[in-house]
Amino acid sequence: MADALDLVIRNAEVATASDTFFCDIGIRGGRIALLGDGLPAGRREIDAAGRTVTPGGVDAHCHLDQAMEGPAKMADDFLTGTRSAACGGTTTIIPFAAQIKGQSLEAAVVDYHGRAEGKACIDYAFHLIVSDPTPQVLAKELPALIAQGYTSFKVYMTYDDLKLDDAQVLDVLDVARTHGALCMVHAENADCIEWLTKRLEAAGRTAPRWHAHARPMLVEREATHRAIALSELVDVPILIVHVSGREAIEQIRWARSHGLSIFAETCPQYLFLTAEDLGIDDSYHGARCICSPPPRDKANQEFIWNGLGDGLFTVFSSDHAPFRYEDPQGKKIGGKEVPFRYIPNGIPGLETRLPLLYSEGVLAGRITLQKFVELTATNPARAYGLHPRKGTIAVGSDADLVVWDEREVTVDNAALHHAVDYTPYEGMKLKAWPGLTLSRGEVVWDGKAFTGHAGRGRFLPCGTPSLLPRRP
Amino acid sequence: MADALDLVIRNAEVATASDTFFCDIGIRGGRIALLGDGLPAGRREIDAAGRTVTPGGVDAHCHLDQAMEGPAKMADDFLTGTRSAACGGTTTIIPFAAQIKGQSLEAAVVDYHGRAEGKACIDYAFHLIVSDPTPQVLAKELPALIAQGYTSFKVYMTYDDLKLDDAQVLDVLDVARTHGALCMVHAENADCIEWLTKRLEAAGRTAPRWHAHARPMLVEREATHRAIALSELVDVPILIVHVSGREAIEQIRWARSHGLSIFAETCPQYLFLTAEDLGIDDSYHGARCICSPPPRDKANQEFIWNGLGDGLFTVFSSDHAPFRYEDPQGKKIGGKEVPFRYIPNGIPGLETRLPLLYSEGVLAGRITLQKFVELTATNPARAYGLHPRKGTIAVGSDADLVVWDEREVTVDNAALHHAVDYTPYEGMKLKAWPGLTLSRGEVVWDGKAFTGHAGRGRFLPCGTPSLLPRRP
Amino acid sequence: MADALDLVIRNAEVATASDTFFCDIGIRGGRIALLGDGLPAGRREIDAAGRTVTPGGVDAHCHLDQAMEGPAKMADDFLTGTRSAACGGTTTIIPFAAQIKGQSLEAAVVDYHGRAEGKACIDYAFHLIVSDPTPQVLAKELPALIAQGYTSFKVYMTYDDLKLDDAQVLDVLDVARTHGALCMVHAENADCIEWLTKRLEAAGRTAPRWHAHARPMLVEREATHRAIALSELVDVPILIVHVSGREAIEQIRWARSHGLSIFAETCPQYLFLTAEDLGIDDSYHGARCICSPPPRDKANQEFIWNGLGDGLFTVFSSDHAPFRYEDPQGKKIGGKEVPFRYIPNGIPGLETRLPLLYSEGVLAGRITLQKFVELTATNPARAYGLHPRKGTIAVGSDADLVVWDEREVTVDNAALHHAVDYTPYEGMKLKAWPGLTLSRGEVVWDGKAFTGHAGRGRFLPCGTPSLLPRRP
Amino acid sequence: MADALDLVIRNAEVATASDTFFCDIGIRGGRIALLGDGLPAGRREIDAAGRTVTPGGVDAHCHLDQAMEGPAKMADDFLTGTRSAACGGTTTIIPFAAQIKGQSLEAAVVDYHGRAEGKACIDYAFHLIVSDPTPQVLAKELPALIAQGYTSFKVYMTYDDLKLDDAQVLDVLDVARTHGALCMVHAENADCIEWLTKRLEAAGRTAPRWHAHARPMLVEREATHRAIALSELVDVPILIVHVSGREAIEQIRWARSHGLSIFAETCPQYLFLTAEDLGIDDSYHGARCICSPPPRDKANQEFIWNGLGDGLFTVFSSDHAPFRYEDPQGKKIGGKEVPFRYIPNGIPGLETRLPLLYSEGVLAGRITLQKFVELTATNPARAYGLHPRKGTIAVGSDADLVVWDEREVTVDNAALHHAVDYTPYEGMKLKAWPGLTLSRGEVVWDGKAFTGHAGRGRFLPCGTPSLLPRRP
Repeated sequence: MADALDLVIRNAEVATASDTFFCDIGIRGGRIALLGDGLPAGRREIDAAGRTVTPGGVDAHCHLDQAMEGPAKMADDFLTGTRSAACGGTTTIIPFAAQIKGQSLEAAVVDYHGRAEGKACIDYAFHLIVSDPTPQVLAKELPALIAQGYTSFKVYMTYDDLKLDDAQVLDVLDVARTHGALCMVHAENADCIEWLTKRLEAAGRTAPRWHAHARPMLVEREATHRAIALSELVDVPILIVHVSGREAIEQIRWARSHGLSIFAETCPQYLFLTAEDLGIDDSYHGARCICSPPPRDKANQEFIWNGLGDGLFTVFSSDHAPFRYEDPQGKKIGGKEVPFRYIPNGIPGLETRLPLLYSEGVLAGRITLQKFVELTATNPARAYGLHPRKGTIAVGSDADLVVWDEREVTVDNAALHHAVDYTPYEGMKLKAWPGLTLSRGEVVWDGKAFTGHAGRGRFLPCGTPSLLPRRP
Repeated sequence: MADALDLVIRNAEVATASDTFFCDIGIRGGRIALLGDGLPAGRREIDAAGRTVTPGGVDAHCHLDQAMEGPAKMADDFLTGTRSAACGGTTTIIPFAAQIKGQSLEAAVVDYHGRAEGKACIDYAFHLIVSDPTPQVLAKELPALIAQGYTSFKVYMTYDDLKLDDAQVLDVLDVARTHGALCMVHAENADCIEWLTKRLEAAGRTAPRWHAHARPMLVEREATHRAIALSELVDVPILIVHVSGREAIEQIRWARSHGLSIFAETCPQYLFLTAEDLGIDDSYHGARCICSPPPRDKANQEFIWNGLGDGLFTVFSSDHAPFRYEDPQGKKIGGKEVPFRYIPNGIPGLETRLPLLYSEGVLAGRITLQKFVELTATNPARAYGLHPRKGTIAVGSDADLVVWDEREVTVDNAALHHAVDYTPYEGMKLKAWPGLTLSRGEVVWDGKAFTGHAGRGRFLPCGTPSLLPRRP
Repeated sequence: MADALDLVIRNAEVATASDTFFCDIGIRGGRIALLGDGLPAGRREIDAAGRTVTPGGVDAHCHLDQAMEGPAKMADDFLTGTRSAACGGTTTIIPFAAQIKGQSLEAAVVDYHGRAEGKACIDYAFHLIVSDPTPQVLAKELPALIAQGYTSFKVYMTYDDLKLDDAQVLDVLDVARTHGALCMVHAENADCIEWLTKRLEAAGRTAPRWHAHARPMLVEREATHRAIALSELVDVPILIVHVSGREAIEQIRWARSHGLSIFAETCPQYLFLTAEDLGIDDSYHGARCICSPPPRDKANQEFIWNGLGDGLFTVFSSDHAPFRYEDPQGKKIGGKEVPFRYIPNGIPGLETRLPLLYSEGVLAGRITLQKFVELTATNPARAYGLHPRKGTIAVGSDADLVVWDEREVTVDNAALHHAVDYTPYEGMKLKAWPGLTLSRGEVVWDGKAFTGHAGRGRFLPCGTPSLLPRRP
Repeated sequence: MADALDLVIRNAEVATASDTFFCDIGIRGGRIALLGDGLPAGRREIDAAGRTVTPGGVDAHCHLDQAMEGPAKMADDFLTGTRSAACGGTTTIIPFAAQIKGQSLEAAVVDYHGRAEGKACIDYAFHLIVSDPTPQVLAKELPALIAQGYTSFKVYMTYDDLKLDDAQVLDVLDVARTHGALCMVHAENADCIEWLTKRLEAAGRTAPRWHAHARPMLVEREATHRAIALSELVDVPILIVHVSGREAIEQIRWARSHGLSIFAETCPQYLFLTAEDLGIDDSYHGARCICSPPPRDKANQEFIWNGLGDGLFTVFSSDHAPFRYEDPQGKKIGGKEVPFRYIPNGIPGLETRLPLLYSEGVLAGRITLQKFVELTATNPARAYGLHPRKGTIAVGSDADLVVWDEREVTVDNAALHHAVDYTPYEGMKLKAWPGLTLSRGEVVWDGKAFTGHAGRGRFLPCGTPSLLPRRP
């Protein structure tokens, strides 16, 4: 205990995924060195009396500066994206390094490191997107990358440029099983979507709101069931991302009750938006809320809340996919009000994820503070092999912390820090917002302004996912 | 940080319900004062290098010195019972203060305090058993006792001297709802059991093994469904105790998926015993394993394991109900091999609960270390309003700790510390046993002998159960 | 083929539960003697060209002239009741001979024969209501009565003067199993109803509409699950009467999918009424629609329709329980607008049952004509041991027939033939009504008037229920 | 009634899908003209006293002389196949006219008429197999063929030369919906099967028994769920063929309980065979029982029996797919013991289907006689638009009848009439066999020998499926 503490946060109400306790937090070298009452003075001190301190958020599903086919371009790069995250209490992100069909996965990893370096303001790891599981990828690249700290990858059951057929999914799952990685699945049935889209188009139904009709719940339910079956066949856990409502939830419950290791993620858009946000007439405004799966209805929102509270969901992520609305590289692709098929999919959410759930989940009495921490920080860190370095408040963990201000905040895109020109949650009144965000002991958001800087974020090689018991 | 630490546990691998981290644990005044690397010297030091340290167990379901109708008598009083618990890593128990029909609840509480004082070696709280919910009990006694720290009570749907009818259960649940208490339910259909028992007796089927035939799974499933319906009607959570197998689990899953707050407990006997342990012929030996619900079969054990791993179960308790086998006040009631109807129900388990689950759950790779802590300590403490004082390792919590020895141990009743003349787990080979148990910073089990003393245990008034979000 | 036919119905479109075919129907001695093309002339001829002919309805759940505790009195006796049935296409009824607690079942049977003889206009059998299963009743009376043709009985899980506890239900089911009878169950949880009723009363909520709040769906679901469990324990089929909605249906589906023989009945009130028919304010008008279980909502109606179509339901009955509205022995018991607890339960429906289902089920395209026949005639006859004498159109069967007129009919109580002063379906526009009803070859309803007479109906001793395979 | 009857069957116990009754059956011009007691003399008379008469079987799933890719060749053509069917009580078959990829459907129909004409001994219709749903096929050929009496077609989700992808299935279902046809689905996941097969082959696991490992239950469950979703999307009924066990059944139950019109078929192999019949070691003998899906286990057989009894299954067919064992065009394809992948799929069953179910279903007390008729005759006729001409015993229906002999019969391939050199049921002792089979009033099997002749069978154009209510 020789060395003085760099920083002491006094009188915090510390919340972890299992406990709430009152103490001082002593930080040294960017890590939590001491937890206790009456810690010795630090070089710097912050008084947190009367305030809740949670682990910095781990956003395990976000897209930044991701290479796109065609003219669309993501609005956020690693600078604006991570800055936005930090200002909303998130201290770790795991965006995707996406393989382009015909190219190698290794190339993708090199490419994305280039995009992140010098820009990222908070720490980051990478999921891989496997879009072309060639024998080379399966036998060589993936195993090598897993060994280097890329221990999770995502497969798509839809989107023309990304989707794998069932045989390919099985091959990828088999690699996950052999090498101890975790596979994420985007579960929607591509053929059904295309079939419906063509019919809608033939009927002239191309306004944004028809996007929801092209991807009804059953399209997600079917693919969810199929993904579960493929996981069962290979005998390997999977994590189903952005689950949107009841029917998919019921498939996952069924799987769990049969002893299968099926994990699930949901996102703010399934709690706070409905299909009506895509439009109730043919106006283009709803293009802002086009994402896949689309938001459902109020009844489905209740099922999502129930699943957050009762353990159905393991992870709560943003699925931040940033496209500007008034932008020929954004929602008005090519500068026009295009048919929904051509509108870039995705909504921004890195900065609002934590405040939305803290306010409407914890403070509104829908979930416990412990569950909030578990869903937004601890479990994502465990799922993707970053725990206990990230995702908790414990001795030895990185001093990634959020000190909460419980005060009324009206969501206002002008006050956000991403590069997107809207937020779907504009005007919502929230009961809290991060008052301070610390990344490795440094204040990167002081409640009023971003106080970090580009390039301070570090790459995190991921270890083995630790949601499940270790086999003896 | 003025005062010196009483005790420092060095280099521990600390496990909570959410995290595992390496640090020293500093204890002062019986509480955890500091967690950190390189803590200053304490008055006493323990080196835990290479060993896992978990919170002391909270056994939320056990019976000690409970008044019985008729000649049976529990073998363990608060001395032998708490001694046994401590030697198995449990540092808090919540036995029952049982109302006798026709008497007041307050009288029961006074009575049980008398039984515990001067004897208990570890801390204890009380659940109430409500067997006679008179208007006086409902309107006055229960609310007053809840306010005094008796915030949980149990109702029985079976046993002649304890059972309530549905109307009475509703009345009790209504009190729980109004006053923020948690109601535990023993769910078996009394009429079905009596109807079957009479038929078995008429057929001369009275050996211990017929006990299982008198209480088939459906008898528990029916009462579980009914308890859920009563809980739903009153709109109040319940906790269903000692769930034994698949059919009851399915009812609980159904309830959860419909948004109902139904919690559940299971016990070691449903993981490690089967109905065959009650006998495969008419020998009396199986009387040792008579408890209710009875153990089921291997397939049901798997469903219980699955439920422990996936969040179906909130609490793992012993349901310690100690009767000697060779004893006219025990299993050979009146000194004879009596029909199963007359055999006192219950098996001992306070001391073996934690080692069984640690060995066969954690070390065998069936559940994570976090889940072990959650089920055996954190959740019971939260469910019954003792958290964070009990059930975790956090600054400010009581220094109730277990330091684990991972070594092969063969279960041997001669080495246990209860007053029962058998253990159902005799001869099982386990992979670990507590090497040290600390209660409020004092070593009460040193791996070889009980080192506490009668009367050092303190009564714990319980607060509000905290499993669910606080309503804003 | 020596004897001439008494009656030939020409060119009928005959519908059975399995087939539709065109032919003449030859009747001799009250029975169907010949089916074929170009039958020889009969003494009388009816031309049915272009019209559908179905078996006369078997209404397996109705109450006529049933002895009541207290001042209430049923409006219909066996004359008005059977007259009404005949005019609505029903040719067989199975009302109840209800045991009064403290009296013998045999006395009830003698009593009800007295009530029926000389009055009944169509054939009838009796279900027994077992309200007091004394050892004498179980061991002697029930077996003797079963042997005499009373092969079905009903037990109640609610109503103070009728309800059995679970032990008594088990005893009655055991008799059903041993002697090959079928037990009907009224499944609602009595304690829950009483508990809710008291609270509603304490809050001054006593208008008719609160009846529905005193008996929510879960009250029926719970008792349904319990009844299934009791049936499973005894290993005997049961038939659950008047199932009202989704939650009970789901329990029955669950039971079936586990191989249990659980049959179910529903009634017109669960297809055409909702809880709103009991009132949306405190007016007394809704007393007319008070029955138990109460009608639910539109969504539940759809589940009932689905269950009728897909085989979930075996029987469609009226549960005719006739009380006048403006009557001190009826809904205004004692001449006053009384709290809902005191309002006699039940609604009239004998005459409207078939037209409602034919019009809104068959002609509206919700169920097939075959399903209509199965639910309203063949299955009730099979369930209660009257098949093939009743319930079908086949050689040797009684010539109980309905010739349908497909024309618009507005339901008008003034045009009905019961003694009740209202119908819940007043003003409904139907697409068909029986044009002729024949009972044993005699026209008892000619489309305009009742043409039968009191006393022509005969008692039908019932045989063994034949819904299930015969054990070899 | 001028004309004399060609044939009278006296004193029959006639069974239909809804009734059993005793009467004489009068036949004229190949049709049932009269049903009644004491019919006038016919030109020919058969005394059926004491014997049950059921409708001739309708086998709605069988393969005869079907064009194969590669060297395999079906053993039965329309002569041996229909002869065999007749000798087992089946009087109508609906084999497949299979489109070859790249060819037209119309060509297939012409081709198969050529194969049937002059050979068929009993009446027949055709299902189409759609393997190449080109725009021409979808827009022109299928609608035209439906109008001509080919109102059902089958799609495959597996088999390289037949399988459609989801988009193609949707297209075909859309045609079914628009034109009122019924689509049958072979539901197994092709990718999973191929993935497993390759792994089994890589491990040298190529003996017949590994066939079952290449097609586990989940492969069928997944495709069943997917087929249901596709049906739901298009809003059109489907019929899932050859359902083999519990997991697929549960999907279908789920669909039904949600109001979807999902029909299902099962076959004798799922009642009487298990995967062990494919071999318990690497011997080749089990090649005889290779079919897809493979038989499962005893527990699954019980689920199939339960589904037959409780209405889950609509149709019971043979899926007769005849390949000789000792034949280079049969199971020893190319004259060798080849890896399972190359063994022609299918087992014979046309002749044994009815006796197996009558004996082990009806006479063993597992299903009622009515259910037997429904599953084997009435429902297949209704499902495929042949009712009431086929599938029942009613005035105007074809006189297709089976008179049953209840006597012990040992299944012996030498006594069967197909061209296959084995039966999977060799040696089974049955309790009955058809004593007479009549096709349009002609005896084609007299209990000892085939008495029909090639070419007497007629093609049956099919009408609209009539399982569901007609939309008004």
